[in-house]
Amino acid sequence: MVKFGVDVGGTTIKTGLFEDNGRLIEKYEIPTDKTEQGRHIIDNITEHLRAVLEEKGMEISQCQGVGIGLPGPVDSEGNILGCVNLGWGTFNIEQEFSKKFGGLPVKAGNDATVATLGEQRAGAGRGMNNLVMITLGTGVGGGIINQGEIVYGTNGAAGEIGHMPVNLEETDMCSCGKRGCLEQYASATGVVRMAKKLMDTSFGNDLDKDFHTVLNRECTAKQVFDAAKAGDALAKKTVECLGKYLGMALATAACILNPECIVIGGGVSRAGEILIKEVEKNFNELVFRPCKNVKFMLAELGNDAGIYGAAALIN
Amino acid sequence: MVKFGVDVGGTTIKTGLFEDNGRLIEKYEIPTDKTEQGRHIIDNITEHLRAVLEEKGMEISQCQGVGIGLPGPVDSEGNILGCVNLGWGTFNIEQEFSKKFGGLPVKAGNDATVATLGEQRAGAGRGMNNLVMITLGTGVGGGIINQGEIVYGTNGAAGEIGHMPVNLEETDMCSCGKRGCLEQYASATGVVRMAKKLMDTSFGNDLDKDFHTVLNRECTAKQVFDAAKAGDALAKKTVECLGKYLGMALATAACILNPECIVIGGGVSRAGEILIKEVEKNFNELVFRPCKNVKFMLAELGNDAGIYGAAALIN
Repeated sequence: MVKFGVDVGGTTIKTGLFEDNGRLIEKYEIPTDKTEQGRHIIDNITEHLRAVLEEKGMEISQCQGVGIGLPGPVDSEGNILGCVNLGWGTFNIEQEFSKKFGGLPVKAGNDATVATLGEQRAGAGRGMNNLVMITLGTGVGGGIINQGEIVYGTNGAAGEIGHMPVNLEETDMCSCGKRGCLEQYASATGVVRMAKKLMDTSFGNDLDKDFHTVLNRECTAKQVFDAAKAGDALAKKTVECLGKYLGMALATAACILNPECIVIGGGVSRAGEILIKEVEKNFNELVFRPCKNVKFMLAELGNDAGIYGAAALIN
Repeated sequence: MVKFGVDVGGTTIKTGLFEDNGRLIEKYEIPTDKTEQGRHIIDNITEHLRAVLEEKGMEISQCQGVGIGLPGPVDSEGNILGCVNLGWGTFNIEQEFSKKFGGLPVKAGNDATVATLGEQRAGAGRGMNNLVMITLGTGVGGGIINQGEIVYGTNGAAGEIGHMPVNLEETDMCSCGKRGCLEQYASATGVVRMAKKLMDTSFGNDLDKDFHTVLNRECTAKQVFDAAKAGDALAKKTVECLGKYLGMALATAACILNPECIVIGGGVSRAGEILIKEVEKNFNELVFRPCKNVKFMLAELGNDAGIYGAAALIN
């Protein structure tokens, strides 16, 4: 028997054909057709999956089911509550998809949560039953695994760590409309925002210009981390600020969930050691002692975490 | 068939005899004997439970099992990792207790978590599958129910909402050794601490004394709330500060867990409307929109939540 893992993004749809034991056989990618409120997306995927089976000389009866990760909240029953990136409104994706794919079992989840399950089953969190993952990309996403299973929450919006409030004094607005969300400090966008704000302060002006070498107002998050590694004072202060709020947020998540392991993924996590060190320092200061014993891991599966996790929804 | 719910505290042990459908038949209380590192506690409880069965003319074979709430972390396997209030070290309470009570099924959990299960099964959270409870007493405890089941975390320390960091600028130390925990603002002790701190500021000195009627340095948390209701400016400012940090903490918990309902219990919750109003105001400002639709409820079972929840561990 085989199964499929599908990771639906705003630009491309990644799919993987898996053995029933979770081993990846082959992966594919098709474009996301968002025209007409995304009404062709499900048909595009089912046609693609049928073509894969045909190519492998397999019948649909040899397929155990399809797991799907989606860019929006999905509750534990498969109800989507609006998926703006795809143009979708409210409906049950599991029922709709199954109807168009031979009545096979279909199970869906939020993409960040499904990626967390992927890392737990096949990546950095292998063998850990209680795990939190945070994805530091353009935005900040997250997912929670409790006793080996996804925590969905009431509307499938559990794990939205990026929008927890961490600074009640913030004056800038987050993409979500609030002020002081973790995403404003720990995303790639947030890192650049902080660096720019520092440039505008007396701290930015008073800097010894020798130590303020690389950065300008068009800098990227990667450049900020590279400059910090090279000793740039403004960049170092930016990374400290990131570490403070991310350490606080993860200490908070640890007090609430008492996980065994926190997996950090997304583009910003490629900063590596300098980031983890700063986060761990603040985490250890702020976490409640009985919840302190947490392993910090960098995500291992990269962009494949979604298809691995989606496939793991089927068992 | 019947079952027992046992709530072990540092001073008294509360027990309840329940029908297997969860209806309370009768409740009892015995003192907690903490002498000799609490080594008599289990025997005291089992003797008491045998006496209850005898009084009711029942055999031990008519008892389904015993659920126990304990004042310390208990993991999902029944391992206690030290219970300082009872003098206990590290052992498996479920195995030890069962050995002394006819080999019956025994299931244990942390007291705050078990009380949460009680409110979910028989109190304010009836019919809600995803629920967070926070208990504002001398300290601040908490518990989490996900899809109808207790979230234990790795060492049974999940739900420690009282020790989440909410203020990175705090200079006073929490009972746990950290600075800036929610407990320093939202517990009875914390309310008094904040009021006293305000008395020492210029705000305290500049107050129109007509509006600063009741409070002195020996005030209780209840007096602070009563004064706030009567219009005392310093007391009102204290309650605002409590609302700010508690609202932030619960907004954070909601972003992470997306619960249907947040139950507020403990002595401080008796302040009622003035507290809930202040908390909801801050919560609504700080919570991520998809997680906003949360019902705030006051706990209903009071001191009986523990025995109801403990009994619900057996099914």
